[in-house]
Amino acid sequence: MKKVGYYNGKIGPLEEIQMPITDRAAYFGDGCYDATTYYNNNIFAFEEHLDRFYNSCRLLEIDFPLSRQELKKEIQAVVDANEEDHGMVYWQTSRGTGVRNHVFPKNAKANLMIFSVPAELVDQKTNFKLITLEDTRFLHCNIKTLNLIPSVIANQRAAEAGCDEVVFHRGERVTECAHSNLLIIKDGVLWSSPRDNLILPGITLKHLLELAEENDIPTREEAYTLDDVWNADEVIVSSSICFGIRTTEINGKSVGGKDEATLRKLQEAYMNKYWADVAERHY
Amino acid sequence: MKKVGYYNGKIGPLEEIQMPITDRAAYFGDGCYDATTYYNNNIFAFEEHLDRFYNSCRLLEIDFPLSRQELKKEIQAVVDANEEDHGMVYWQTSRGTGVRNHVFPKNAKANLMIFSVPAELVDQKTNFKLITLEDTRFLHCNIKTLNLIPSVIANQRAAEAGCDEVVFHRGERVTECAHSNLLIIKDGVLWSSPRDNLILPGITLKHLLELAEENDIPTREEAYTLDDVWNADEVIVSSSICFGIRTTEINGKSVGGKDEATLRKLQEAYMNKYWADVAERHY
Repeated sequence: MKKVGYYNGKIGPLEEIQMPITDRAAYFGDGCYDATTYYNNNIFAFEEHLDRFYNSCRLLEIDFPLSRQELKKEIQAVVDANEEDHGMVYWQTSRGTGVRNHVFPKNAKANLMIFSVPAELVDQKTNFKLITLEDTRFLHCNIKTLNLIPSVIANQRAAEAGCDEVVFHRGERVTECAHSNLLIIKDGVLWSSPRDNLILPGITLKHLLELAEENDIPTREEAYTLDDVWNADEVIVSSSICFGIRTTEINGKSVGGKDEATLRKLQEAYMNKYWADVAERHY
Repeated sequence: MKKVGYYNGKIGPLEEIQMPITDRAAYFGDGCYDATTYYNNNIFAFEEHLDRFYNSCRLLEIDFPLSRQELKKEIQAVVDANEEDHGMVYWQTSRGTGVRNHVFPKNAKANLMIFSVPAELVDQKTNFKLITLEDTRFLHCNIKTLNLIPSVIANQRAAEAGCDEVVFHRGERVTECAHSNLLIIKDGVLWSSPRDNLILPGITLKHLLELAEENDIPTREEAYTLDDVWNADEVIVSSSICFGIRTTEINGKSVGGKDEATLRKLQEAYMNKYWADVAERHY
C-alpha cells in the first residue's frame, strides 16, 4: 500500500477506510490534528508534534483516550504499513460519535483517524510565489483544528494565481500563511510574528528560531506589517513539508532575495537537523 | 427506524451509515448544511431552506451536483423512512473526497449526507436563560458551514451554566446566539441585527420580521449592543426548532418580560404559519 488509512484501530488502504457519519468531525469539524514527515520510516520531530497534538486536545477540551505510548504505536504502525519509506503522516481526533448536538457528548470516546501518504520534501532551492489576502479566520488559530474552510479557500485563490501560498494579514499586521508560517530576515535578524492566538505555533518555525540562535543569527518575535514584508531582505515560508523556503514574488512583484547567506545557513542547519533526526527510530 | 441516515444514495439506520475518511468534511469541515423540522412528514419552509443551502454552496464555491428536484427527493425519502411523523431533518454537502490537499480537488463530486431524527417543537411558553460570550468566530457567519467549533464550545459553556444559549458579542455589538438568532423588542419595535457577514440569515428570523410587518409591529434591522439587550422590553431567541422563545435571564440577571402582548402576538402568528405549512406536502 502506498496510501494507508486508519480509523479507531482498523488499518487498510486509505480509500477503503470509513467513519460513521455521526463522527463529530463530519458535521462540526469538532477535532484537532497534527502531521509531520517521515523518512526511513522514522517520524521527524515526533515528540514535538505529539506535544502540540495533546496541547490542541487540551485547548479544545477533548479527552483523548490514548496514552502517548499507545498513540505513538498506532501512528508508527500506519507509517510501517506504507510500502514507501518516506512521506507524510497525519493524525486527528474528534470529540466523539453521536447524534448531532452542540453540547459535548457525555460518555462519548474521542475518535482517532490516521493516514500516511507518499510525499517528497521540497527542494530547498525552490522559490515560492505568494499572494496577499485579508485574514478572516477565527481567533483560535493557535489550535490545530479541523475548521479550515478559510485556509482551503485561500489556497485555492493562490493556486488560481499560479502561486504556492498566501500571506494572511489582519489589516496591516501579517499573521501567517494558509498552512505555513511566514518569517522575514531584515538586517541579519530572523523575524517571526509573536506566537499568539492569531498564528499556529509551527514546529518548523520553532526549529528555525532555535537554529538561528545556535548559528549566531539574532531573532525577534514581534508583530510585523505588510510594509515590513515588502522591505525584508528575505521572506521565508516554513512548514513541516517545506521547512524554510525562499519567497521571491508576492502579488506578482519581486520581494526579498537580498540576504542569501543567512537564508542558506538556516536551510543547511535545518537539513542537518532533519537527517540526524530521521536516522533514528522514535518509537 | 427512528434515526435515519443517508450518504450518497445509501439509506439506513443512522448509526450504520458510513463515509470515507477522505471526505473533505472529515478533515477540513469543507462543506455546508441546512436543517429544518417536519410534521406529518411534511418539511417546513422547505423551499427557503433549499434556497439558503444552494446559496451556501455558491458562497463556498461548491458545485453541488443534484438539481433542486433531485435533492428534494432524497431529503423527503429520509423523512419518509423515519417511523416518526415529526422531527428534524438535516442535510450537508462537502466539496468531495480525496487525499488531503487544501486546493479544490479536480473532478471530485460533492458528497451528500442526510439524517432525520425525532425532535419536539419547543413549547412557546418556555423561558430561556442565556450567558454572554465574546464572539471569536470567523468572518463568514453568513454561510452555514461545517466549521462550528466556537459554537460547540459556547454551547457547552451555556450548558455548564444551566443555560440554553449564548449571546455572542463582538465588543459591545451583539451578533447572534451559538446556533440561533437573537432579536429584541423595544417600544413595540421588533429589532434584529443586520444580516451581514457576522450573523446567519436565519429563516425563522426572516419569518418573524415578515410576520411582524403583517401584524403591524414595526421592525428595525440595525446593529445593537449589550446595553440594548439589557434595556429591551423582550429578548427573543429564534431558530428552526424553537421559533421565537422568550429570554428571561442572562448571566443570572433578569431581562425583558415587559411586552408580553407583542411577544405572544408574534408567537401565535408563527404557529399559525407553521401548522398551515406542514399541512401540505412540498415534494
